[in-house]
Amino acid sequence: MANSMYEYVRLFEQPDVLLPNTWIVVRIDGRGFHKFSAKHEFEKPNDRRALDLMNAAAVSTMTEIYDIVLAYGISDEYSFVLHKNCTLFERRSCKLVTTIVSTFTAYYIQLWSTFFPTKTLSAPLPTFDGRAVCYPSDQNLRDYMSWRQVDCHINNLYNTTFWALVQKGGMSAGDATQALSGTLSSDKNEILWSKYGINYNNESEMFKKGSILYRDFELASESQDPPTTEDAGVEKPVSKTAATRDRKAKTKAGVTIQYVDMIQSLFWDLRPWILSGKAGKPRETI
Amino acid sequence: MANSMYEYVRLFEQPDVLLPNTWIVVRIDGRGFHKFSAKHEFEKPNDRRALDLMNAAAVSTMTEIYDIVLAYGISDEYSFVLHKNCTLFERRSCKLVTTIVSTFTAYYIQLWSTFFPTKTLSAPLPTFDGRAVCYPSDQNLRDYMSWRQVDCHINNLYNTTFWALVQKGGMSAGDATQALSGTLSSDKNEILWSKYGINYNNESEMFKKGSILYRDFELASESQDPPTTEDAGVEKPVSKTAATRDRKAKTKAGVTIQYVDMIQSLFWDLRPWILSGKAGKPRETI
Amino acid sequence: MANSMYEYVRLFEQPDVLLPNTWIVVRIDGRGFHKFSAKHEFEKPNDRRALDLMNAAAVSTMTEIYDIVLAYGISDEYSFVLHKNCTLFERRSCKLVTTIVSTFTAYYIQLWSTFFPTKTLSAPLPTFDGRAVCYPSDQNLRDYMSWRQVDCHINNLYNTTFWALVQKGGMSAGDATQALSGTLSSDKNEILWSKYGINYNNESEMFKKGSILYRDFELASESQDPPTTEDAGVEKPVSKTAATRDRKAKTKAGVTIQYVDMIQSLFWDLRPWILSGKAGKPRETI
Amino acid sequence: MANSMYEYVRLFEQPDVLLPNTWIVVRIDGRGFHKFSAKHEFEKPNDRRALDLMNAAAVSTMTEIYDIVLAYGISDEYSFVLHKNCTLFERRSCKLVTTIVSTFTAYYIQLWSTFFPTKTLSAPLPTFDGRAVCYPSDQNLRDYMSWRQVDCHINNLYNTTFWALVQKGGMSAGDATQALSGTLSSDKNEILWSKYGINYNNESEMFKKGSILYRDFELASESQDPPTTEDAGVEKPVSKTAATRDRKAKTKAGVTIQYVDMIQSLFWDLRPWILSGKAGKPRETI
Repeated sequence: MANSMYEYVRLFEQPDVLLPNTWIVVRIDGRGFHKFSAKHEFEKPNDRRALDLMNAAAVSTMTEIYDIVLAYGISDEYSFVLHKNCTLFERRSCKLVTTIVSTFTAYYIQLWSTFFPTKTLSAPLPTFDGRAVCYPSDQNLRDYMSWRQVDCHINNLYNTTFWALVQKGGMSAGDATQALSGTLSSDKNEILWSKYGINYNNESEMFKKGSILYRDFELASESQDPPTTEDAGVEKPVSKTAATRDRKAKTKAGVTIQYVDMIQSLFWDLRPWILSGKAGKPRETI
Repeated sequence: MANSMYEYVRLFEQPDVLLPNTWIVVRIDGRGFHKFSAKHEFEKPNDRRALDLMNAAAVSTMTEIYDIVLAYGISDEYSFVLHKNCTLFERRSCKLVTTIVSTFTAYYIQLWSTFFPTKTLSAPLPTFDGRAVCYPSDQNLRDYMSWRQVDCHINNLYNTTFWALVQKGGMSAGDATQALSGTLSSDKNEILWSKYGINYNNESEMFKKGSILYRDFELASESQDPPTTEDAGVEKPVSKTAATRDRKAKTKAGVTIQYVDMIQSLFWDLRPWILSGKAGKPRETI
Repeated sequence: MANSMYEYVRLFEQPDVLLPNTWIVVRIDGRGFHKFSAKHEFEKPNDRRALDLMNAAAVSTMTEIYDIVLAYGISDEYSFVLHKNCTLFERRSCKLVTTIVSTFTAYYIQLWSTFFPTKTLSAPLPTFDGRAVCYPSDQNLRDYMSWRQVDCHINNLYNTTFWALVQKGGMSAGDATQALSGTLSSDKNEILWSKYGINYNNESEMFKKGSILYRDFELASESQDPPTTEDAGVEKPVSKTAATRDRKAKTKAGVTIQYVDMIQSLFWDLRPWILSGKAGKPRETI
Repeated sequence: MANSMYEYVRLFEQPDVLLPNTWIVVRIDGRGFHKFSAKHEFEKPNDRRALDLMNAAAVSTMTEIYDIVLAYGISDEYSFVLHKNCTLFERRSCKLVTTIVSTFTAYYIQLWSTFFPTKTLSAPLPTFDGRAVCYPSDQNLRDYMSWRQVDCHINNLYNTTFWALVQKGGMSAGDATQALSGTLSSDKNEILWSKYGINYNNESEMFKKGSILYRDFELASESQDPPTTEDAGVEKPVSKTAATRDRKAKTKAGVTIQYVDMIQSLFWDLRPWILSGKAGKPRETI
């Protein structure tokens, strides 16, 4: 039985290659996590175990998918950054996004019991959707990351204050929402401090800054020239030996999780390998 | 800290809505399953537990994602069909594909130990990629399904013969490959029968036909008019009550797994609810 | 001087093939025709010369681009329909649209002096933009055509009444706009009849129905089965001889302009070659 | 007669917005110009009138479509560059391309008789197709322009030599093709010089370099810093007054045609307004 008479259906597949020489950001989001987190009694405003699980799944994803140069997680979302020179899966959008979503989901389910040993998953299981967006310039990429980190800050300050009003102040959710309506950041800081003795600045960096993942190379000194990738048309192909060496160095470096500011230039200046996409100098081991 | 100065990055997101009034097929494929199946010692040519796990994950996916009207699985791939009237996620391609891929992956990992109780998963975990393709006419959809089912047959006959040569005939993989080079279906049937007393027709229907999933309504009588969806421009919106009734009927019907021929019209004529997308007549329970 | 170091820029070209087995409608619109028609003193509400020029340009376009099976023009817009089996330019969207736009523009400029012998074109010249839209089913295509023809009717009734109020009633544009605000079709008919003795039904069919272009074959008798293209997956390729014969028959048939109703089925039933895409029976010449 | 029941067909229109912050190049090509140029007896290897007509149409196009910052023409093709900050038509691809194609075509037809006063156009008329491609970095854009200019050189050297062999050497087209098969640039220069006393370097700059169009501002001094647009995320919106001033300056500057090298940096360094997209310093008028 030959298959030729049906094979024409392949003609309906449409290509979805992402524009070359652009940064690719794949952002994934938990589906229905409001309900899911209630079902499994996540702590409010932040559940450290849930965030650690997100981070562990992200580290595994970044370890398996070598082309991810940077990742950033807040709440039930994670952004994965592929370098503008990335050619994985010929930059096919759907292939990139589904591979990242599937890998992240697999580790989230598999590692669940490590972080929630007393809670059993049941249907409907936690799942994630995702999408890819291209950013042409380094500045666009940095602005994307800043957008997410500012969002983290805004949401966390709100949630911290909201749950203080509810948990410590005994307010109903509705009353707390109303109390915060129209308040500025300074108002929320003031509520936290004057009513509950909470100095927001002393809250966990993980909650305030979100989680940043990258390969763990030696930080550059501040005096170095800041990195740029803009002058390049398309990168010259490196020799196979150089590519293998680069890959080995990155594998050896491993992935680190940091909770720091990405909005200022300092983050990028100290870690030039993120924008360059090239392995940095190995960290000294003591 | 307002976020407005960075929010322009949202402008880089590009829409990916699939053409209305077309069938949507989301096909997912196991990534690196050749290596994965070797690592976990899947039986050859078919591992019943592995196929049952694929089917269980697909049933859960179809149960959760109500808009899937038909699914078809062979080996490490699964095709999920969304009706041409489907408006889930406003038909956004990436959202549909990632949701299906993530749900399938979640259940595959979660249910692994049920089907492989003695084998523990370890990194790299099994993952799936996916893509969506639109088919304008019912005939195009049927031809897609036929294409996959013919592929199932061709591959299974080849693999059955190949592994007979290796497992029963003691051939090396290379010798078996060479022995089958250029053979027709009839040749393979003859090898199986004359050398090893295997009548291919008696092989498991699951292996020969693949696994077909759909909502389990009462089969129509053959004399009924065959269904068609072609005359409709776009379906008239049904009343909310009717929609709820339809959804309840489908939920109650549950998902059945069949191993039958989809290439002939009979499959479709007996199950008019697949092409119509409307709940059928409930099955009699005895 | 070899060009290889720069040729990578071709990788940035992205494919734009339209989904197979769908009707392609290319609609073009005059750019800034409000100003343009004022500059050249087009008659209101309809300038017969301007419409005849549009039609002449469309006939030339349809004559040169053989794959157009139907066209429909109102005011400064024209819709060109390519058959769902069309493979011209491998169905590349931009190539199809720009070819039609450029051909139409070329003839519009070239034929201008034939229809406006006393008016000389000057910068800015009249130009047209365009877009392609795919319609999966025959009914979708018919609904598209009905949409445009209903629009023609609504606009023409409005404009006829508006200009009667202005030209015959001596109203200012602002007063006429206000007088028509919130009126129904029946109100406008009544205004035309009672105030100006105009029976809208007696207005020119061209103005009321728009201009329909198709190859001029012998009309079918009404008793024939209505045509359908829906059962086909993808058309079987015809022999080269048959294709040549088909093309010759179409060329010989020529393009006719009709001002009739396309909303009812009768139009399509009498002209089955439009939906089938196959040459019809030659008209008797007397 | 309300139109609401048919308006759903608008849902089939799919968006085609080009990625922000990327250079847009719209390249148009003459359709069937080999035949067209034979019909109108264009001179070989280059017909100055035909090239001047192309340039005149391009100047008019660039004058009308203010967002074009650079254009480059060779033979029957023209590339139009829109700045990465361009927001014309919300960057809708089809709208941009068809507007440029239609405008160019209109002027080509309209101006034909100015450049070919003794030759009358007849069907099929000359037409152009087009496509848009995005380039993320300045270097990518420059490499695109270099690609076209190198192509111009390669083609012109070949054609000059080919037609020398045919016109002066009396060779048949076939013999000339064979004589040039496998030759290097140096070989062709040698043939021209030794056989026909032609020094290729003395050929017309227009033929060797192609035609470059840009707004005519005062050249910068070489010592200035070279321009770059890379650091910007997305340009800050300028005030309405500033935008009007910028537009006036550009309109006043007019469009110049130059036949110079664009491959070296000097071209871009001396004309910083092309990459910056901002009006330059007005030229001194003497």
